Amino acid sequence: MTKMIDPSTLVLFGASGNLSRVKLMPGLFRLDAAGRLHDDMKILSVGRGEVPLEAWRADIKGMLDAKFKGGYDQKVYERFIARNHYHANPPSDPDAFNKLRDKLADERVFPQNLAYFLSVRPTDFATIVEQLAGVGLVDETNYWRRVLIEKPFGTDLPSAQALQAALTKHLKESQIYRIDHYLGKSAVQNVMLTRFTNAILEPLWNNEYIDHVQITNNETLGVGDRTTFYDATGALRDMFQSHLLQTLAMVAMEKPKDLQPESIRAEKIKLLESIRPIDVSNMDKQAFRAQYAAGRVCVGDGHGENVPGYLEELKRDGVDASNTETYAAAKLFIDNPRWKGVPFYVRTAKRMHEGNTAIAVRFKKAPMLLNDNQHQNWLIINIQPRECIKIEIESKIPGLDIATRTISVDAPQRQADDESIDSYETLLLNLMAGDASQYLHINEVLAQWRLVDPIVKTWASDTRAVHQYIAGSRDPLESKVIFENEDQFWRYSIELGGDKH
Amino acid sequence: MTKMIDPSTLVLFGASGNLSRVKLMPGLFRLDAAGRLHDDMKILSVGRGEVPLEAWRADIKGMLDAKFKGGYDQKVYERFIARNHYHANPPSDPDAFNKLRDKLADERVFPQNLAYFLSVRPTDFATIVEQLAGVGLVDETNYWRRVLIEKPFGTDLPSAQALQAALTKHLKESQIYRIDHYLGKSAVQNVMLTRFTNAILEPLWNNEYIDHVQITNNETLGVGDRTTFYDATGALRDMFQSHLLQTLAMVAMEKPKDLQPESIRAEKIKLLESIRPIDVSNMDKQAFRAQYAAGRVCVGDGHGENVPGYLEELKRDGVDASNTETYAAAKLFIDNPRWKGVPFYVRTAKRMHEGNTAIAVRFKKAPMLLNDNQHQNWLIINIQPRECIKIEIESKIPGLDIATRTISVDAPQRQADDESIDSYETLLLNLMAGDASQYLHINEVLAQWRLVDPIVKTWASDTRAVHQYIAGSRDPLESKVIFENEDQFWRYSIELGGDKH
Repeated sequence: MTKMIDPSTLVLFGASGNLSRVKLMPGLFRLDAAGRLHDDMKILSVGRGEVPLEAWRADIKGMLDAKFKGGYDQKVYERFIARNHYHANPPSDPDAFNKLRDKLADERVFPQNLAYFLSVRPTDFATIVEQLAGVGLVDETNYWRRVLIEKPFGTDLPSAQALQAALTKHLKESQIYRIDHYLGKSAVQNVMLTRFTNAILEPLWNNEYIDHVQITNNETLGVGDRTTFYDATGALRDMFQSHLLQTLAMVAMEKPKDLQPESIRAEKIKLLESIRPIDVSNMDKQAFRAQYAAGRVCVGDGHGENVPGYLEELKRDGVDASNTETYAAAKLFIDNPRWKGVPFYVRTAKRMHEGNTAIAVRFKKAPMLLNDNQHQNWLIINIQPRECIKIEIESKIPGLDIATRTISVDAPQRQADDESIDSYETLLLNLMAGDASQYLHINEVLAQWRLVDPIVKTWASDTRAVHQYIAGSRDPLESKVIFENEDQFWRYSIELGGDKH
Repeated sequence: MTKMIDPSTLVLFGASGNLSRVKLMPGLFRLDAAGRLHDDMKILSVGRGEVPLEAWRADIKGMLDAKFKGGYDQKVYERFIARNHYHANPPSDPDAFNKLRDKLADERVFPQNLAYFLSVRPTDFATIVEQLAGVGLVDETNYWRRVLIEKPFGTDLPSAQALQAALTKHLKESQIYRIDHYLGKSAVQNVMLTRFTNAILEPLWNNEYIDHVQITNNETLGVGDRTTFYDATGALRDMFQSHLLQTLAMVAMEKPKDLQPESIRAEKIKLLESIRPIDVSNMDKQAFRAQYAAGRVCVGDGHGENVPGYLEELKRDGVDASNTETYAAAKLFIDNPRWKGVPFYVRTAKRMHEGNTAIAVRFKKAPMLLNDNQHQNWLIINIQPRECIKIEIESKIPGLDIATRTISVDAPQRQADDESIDSYETLLLNLMAGDASQYLHINEVLAQWRLVDPIVKTWASDTRAVHQYIAGSRDPLESKVIFENEDQFWRYSIELGGDKH
């Protein structure tokens, strides 16, 4: 189904920043080229300094030239560039937001449905909303007004609650679009569609047939030059709290009654709120952290590259010690009838031997066991690097004897001529279409922090040395401590019958 | 598991016939090469004429040379040829079976466990058993004695019952090995293993999730020079009564309590006996027949070849008219809780557009329907020409919209370095091993005739012109009359989402 879209103005705060240059402007251009923007849609970029309109448009042209090296349609370009306007909003000018209001008041230029994209520092979210409200720019009496908040939404439960309180002084929940760009990924959306548009999955999708589930986001990259940010954040807050728990919600939620945004979000909230809180008195059996040491990782062209350890990178930037995790894993249980007793093992790590985002489901033992080595079935939804679905089943070894082996039925979900859509394109389109299904409801954010905060706190006060793993290696064997059963461990993406070690 | 084997003598009636030359002798040789024959195992070929032992062994060498054009291991050849003996059994000699007994009595040459392979005309089965019994050669007091009966076991229910009565005058049921060489195929055995060694299939394998099942055996070949045999037999008795109903039993039976032959056969018998008898008063809605007319079929190298119609082939051989079917299809229901309401569509045909042996399972509608065209899931176990398992599922089309398409996860069950085993190798090995699981129990044979006889009779007395289909075409559209629902029809092997027409 193609979404219906009202005429609107997208007001882009932080328009000269990197996200805007690399993702937002090119994404909007592509939406325009695909015929997805309303004819009257306008883009008002808001920046600190005065920039003449023609200079700003030339700047945009530069962004497009940089992104679309193969060139682009000139007719689309002219249509797109004509949508673009600029407004200077110097922090020193107490009258800046009044001027913004006056600028937007010109209905001949700007449709009055307003979508604000706050591509700014998290500390500025509340202030900007307050100032917009102060000049009447979030009032929905005659038109809709929506505010997109970039991640992170707080850095723990209290800060998220405080931000929410500041926003809801001026905005209704339905006006707030909290971003988790993972949800804009087609492959992540596919998790839900795959589950519910196939008759053969739903009957198996419960504790009667599923042994355990693994949700993985591993990278070969290290922290790079983001040491300061990363050391204050860690893998748990950077990836686990947001993307991985959202993926878990997609995997485990009940079927929404329809595909309406509120129906989907209601099921995700219910799921996230039913994850059993971590028992902090028994943390070592439920959560595991580690840091990468110097090692050798595989780079793009298949060659190895020597890389420094995390602590060495910190030292280079003047930090002497850190307990911050670059590997975070936890075992979660969901307290509802469907998932009673099924462990969900969730991990994210930097500097691993392979980059891989995947959902791997191991099923219980088969009704007929020919021998002790018979593999259990796996279903793997691979999101990165390759979008594919893989099912591992047992099949007879041709020949005289009764014996089976594991074969893998495997299909790419992406075909050669498929569009490659950046997640921001989807998210921008949905912002304008008023479809919040791929944005976070506040209750999702709060449930995620509520779950993660106790781990963060326990780890912060734990002075034992953090496990080290060699960059480019597989999961630390010490992480086995969180697994429920001897025969469970992390599975790697591509190997067949990956449940044996 | 490798089977345990006693020393034994295989007594081969009809040893100079085609089956023996092309399948049995080469098959035994391959079993020997694979180390599967007991060191002391002997083969006594029985023929009508006197042949000196060295001439017979030279004849066998010719069979092996013809089969194994790439040559064979000389050491295995010497071992194998030394196993082989010959006995002349002229029909005119009233003393022939006494001489056979005396020959076999030499324990230094012949192990006393005796397996008789009756590769003879069906009318001779009972006579040979009677004569063997007359000279004490089926007595199991000290050794086992087994008789392998080639197909067909009768040509209808009364003749099968009569044959059984004649055999059981002298043999216990456990001594009788009724062949259906389909059951020797690794791919057919795989149907059962696939069902029960995978946790993800059994929960789906019932009327709650399965819409219908199709069992297909189609050939591009015509009747060739077998017009006389074929016209007296027809597709229903030639293929449907035996191979297709056995395949159905594998697909639909309950899980045997273990892999013991009697456990497997007990479940197959139960299944075959629970197929609902055809309602002869309403035959047109349940069974469909047709004959091929002249047309054009695809031959091995992908080129078309003009071929005559069935009636033309009969005319060439002096027959003027025939209602015999070369296409037979029926809708069957199984009266048990698992399969209540699920139609099984079973078809076999000659001169079709493609040769294909397959089991295709269509699942019911998914819990979430995005639009009316959303395909239902299929699971296809393909037996010929390619052994593979294929699952068709829905997956999101990458891009901005919520829409799915069908993708196929597909794995070959046969890999490049797998052994290629002729079904007779498996059957011969199991005969010597005493494993009757791939042989038919009498109750299976009787249940199959009981089901098919009323169709055969009704068709025989039906004087309406038989439907004609053009050789090389797809299923006659007229066969749609047997389908329960508008949206069901024959599916073809390779196409994706084959449920739409």
